[in-house]
Amino acid sequence: MSVDDVLREVLQRIVPSAEERERVARVVDKVLRALERASREEGVDVIAEVEGSFAKDTWLAGDVDIDVFLLFSPATPLDELRRQGLLVARRAAEVLGAEWEERYASHPYLTLKVEGYSVDVVPAYRVSSPLEILSPVDRTPFHTMYVRSRFEERPSLKDEVRLLKRFAKGVGVYGAEIRVEGFSGYLLELLVLHYGSFKSTIAAAANWRPYRTFIDLERHYKDRREALKKFQDPLVVVDPVDPRRNVASPVSLESMCKFIAASRAFLRAPSTSFFYPPESAERPLDELLRSRAVVAIKTTIPRLPEDVLWGQVKRAIRALSNGLERAGFTVYSSHAWASGDVLILLFELESLTLPPLEKHYGPPVYSDHDVRFITKYLRGGAVAGPYIEGDRWVVIRRRKLRGVEQALAKLISTYNVGEHITECLRRGYEVYVGPRVAEASADPEYRTQLTRWLERKYPWLSS
Amino acid sequence: MSVDDVLREVLQRIVPSAEERERVARVVDKVLRALERASREEGVDVIAEVEGSFAKDTWLAGDVDIDVFLLFSPATPLDELRRQGLLVARRAAEVLGAEWEERYASHPYLTLKVEGYSVDVVPAYRVSSPLEILSPVDRTPFHTMYVRSRFEERPSLKDEVRLLKRFAKGVGVYGAEIRVEGFSGYLLELLVLHYGSFKSTIAAAANWRPYRTFIDLERHYKDRREALKKFQDPLVVVDPVDPRRNVASPVSLESMCKFIAASRAFLRAPSTSFFYPPESAERPLDELLRSRAVVAIKTTIPRLPEDVLWGQVKRAIRALSNGLERAGFTVYSSHAWASGDVLILLFELESLTLPPLEKHYGPPVYSDHDVRFITKYLRGGAVAGPYIEGDRWVVIRRRKLRGVEQALAKLISTYNVGEHITECLRRGYEVYVGPRVAEASADPEYRTQLTRWLERKYPWLSS
Repeated sequence: MSVDDVLREVLQRIVPSAEERERVARVVDKVLRALERASREEGVDVIAEVEGSFAKDTWLAGDVDIDVFLLFSPATPLDELRRQGLLVARRAAEVLGAEWEERYASHPYLTLKVEGYSVDVVPAYRVSSPLEILSPVDRTPFHTMYVRSRFEERPSLKDEVRLLKRFAKGVGVYGAEIRVEGFSGYLLELLVLHYGSFKSTIAAAANWRPYRTFIDLERHYKDRREALKKFQDPLVVVDPVDPRRNVASPVSLESMCKFIAASRAFLRAPSTSFFYPPESAERPLDELLRSRAVVAIKTTIPRLPEDVLWGQVKRAIRALSNGLERAGFTVYSSHAWASGDVLILLFELESLTLPPLEKHYGPPVYSDHDVRFITKYLRGGAVAGPYIEGDRWVVIRRRKLRGVEQALAKLISTYNVGEHITECLRRGYEVYVGPRVAEASADPEYRTQLTRWLERKYPWLSS
Repeated sequence: MSVDDVLREVLQRIVPSAEERERVARVVDKVLRALERASREEGVDVIAEVEGSFAKDTWLAGDVDIDVFLLFSPATPLDELRRQGLLVARRAAEVLGAEWEERYASHPYLTLKVEGYSVDVVPAYRVSSPLEILSPVDRTPFHTMYVRSRFEERPSLKDEVRLLKRFAKGVGVYGAEIRVEGFSGYLLELLVLHYGSFKSTIAAAANWRPYRTFIDLERHYKDRREALKKFQDPLVVVDPVDPRRNVASPVSLESMCKFIAASRAFLRAPSTSFFYPPESAERPLDELLRSRAVVAIKTTIPRLPEDVLWGQVKRAIRALSNGLERAGFTVYSSHAWASGDVLILLFELESLTLPPLEKHYGPPVYSDHDVRFITKYLRGGAVAGPYIEGDRWVVIRRRKLRGVEQALAKLISTYNVGEHITECLRRGYEVYVGPRVAEASADPEYRTQLTRWLERKYPWLSS
């Protein structure tokens, strides 16, 4: 299949039809009117404005999230903005008869369910310049404005953005949230504006180098060196509306590299599987677990904002991996699964049991702690030594904890793996080892994710 | 036992008696006369001069090596010096009816056995200043001169040197040769001259810090910083007769630290065992080997000058250790034993067998080698992946070589572990694993050293 054939097929699925556009527009209109009525009734001075992919017309058919901002005067105190924002949003939900849920990013916002569509109602400040923002979300209206005005010159770019979004989703790097550490919609829009099309973006990304790639649409910086010195991120895309900000700063090295790798693979062998990953025939979980050295820790976690949760999860994984490595284990890979109040941390190790002896390093010979170390091990417990290696005292001794279960128990009782999760673990946890890891949750989604993590095969990768 | 009691006891054993002095002096005299006669008979213009510990009167009772230098005019071509030096030495051996052996340091020299004493006859140039030396041994006469003149002021320092030599021997750091990487006799003499006594040397060494300790008897350098910048060695003792040279440059970090540790231990609990290590009750070798993960490689090696041999041995151990680590093993310790034409390299590992799976890193995603890696592992051989970690392609795959025997076989057939030993190993070797390591040599000295290496306990260390 040629690139153009692939893109034609994908476009048919992602460009919204006239009917869908109308349907969504009606919902948006309804929401705006409800918000206006609510603010009037509550006596709140606020302007409701549509932002995001709907406002920019870059949303994907069957996959639209509506963002409505409630813009307050900068004179409003922050706690008033929060209080009044929620008040208006809740009142509008009542008017609409919509279900709603309170969420939290930099400050609280409401997500309404209106006729099956998810609508975020976000309070923000209406500032006169992006350099005067009072909270991070205040930048969004400027992003909407910038992108819309650029698309006016070339409306065809909107479909190019749609292709790139679907591609990023398909290869698993869409979204700036901490769980993904990937590409935001705005970032993908800027890439298309910079490179001119989906194809030229992919062609460029195939040659990207982490920590050397720099895009500056409005030429805020003199040269690449100046900008790369300021932004020490794998990918740097200067925000056209705010030179102090790297739009790509949430993109991790790994997400950038997945994007690079997928771009290279797409150019070599174009296929719709980059956009729509096919379900692969999975190997039985039991068989996978039996051939690997996997351990799972399951705990109960209170509801937290997504980014807070995943920030904590990543920190906990890092801390426990370090702890396991320090205890003598080799960690090949790690993963986390969270759903409801269940959190499962997964680790693949080189081995679930360590050899009986370990080499243990003591203080340098010139340290004042030498006597304690020497005395301790002369009295017993050393299989060899104390002897000197380089400038340090060393012993070979019997390992106290050989199994991963005991090692984790010790880590959990002594390590700080981050405020929230440390607390959760101290309250209670279960460890599953080897084939029993499959039993950590009965949720079929857990088994699917576990299988995929164990196989670690990209559906888009072909030889 | 007090420090003074210990030193008194040791001095009784190391200060030569009047009879022994006379006996050695007679031998030295005899050798000098034989060399003079030999040079006359061979028509070689040379001066025979006694150097080393006998000349400086710092030798230990029952433990004297006599060094006689044949000093040639600097006008003599190097090959003539070598030829004539050996000629005169061999002729003198004939005159004395002494057995002899040719050895090699910077150039060839002869070792004679005269009335049970070992006499080195070393050809060198008689230069007018240490800054004009033509070969490293030419410095020796200036060292002799310097130390003798300094001892004239304080003859009592000679016995302090004797104590320090016996101490360095006792704790295993005496000798500048590559096998030991320790303290030469001249270096110990300079330490006593600098610190003023055995006791103050030990007290100072107890507080030495590697890479920060600097001694400059003749104040050749402005300050410590200037000298430490030039000499990047753990211990710096500027040669009084040649500011360009660090007398302590052969001292390894480990030898310096052994000296520091022994000094600290001696101050805490003085004992004669620092000077005369007692035989410890050894644990049965079989039991030791059964509880440890040890492997031995035995090969045949041609006769080489000591320093060449041990330079090669250390390089081979380093290369094989690195190779084993790269293959996934953890090397806890290594050792070598050589006798006659047999060389045995010993490694203690964390484990003799590796787990079934390994994590294997491929190229970065942006490398042109990506296709080969991806294609290879998509076709088979990957248990997980190819997947991306950081900026690289990775797979989990089945390990090809799990046993240390196979891993060593592969290393030996592909690795360069240093010119000589690579050649020896390619010609033939045997690998002994676990308890069989005891059978690598029937030499009782091998079993003793193997046991000591496995126990790694310093006889001078007490709690």
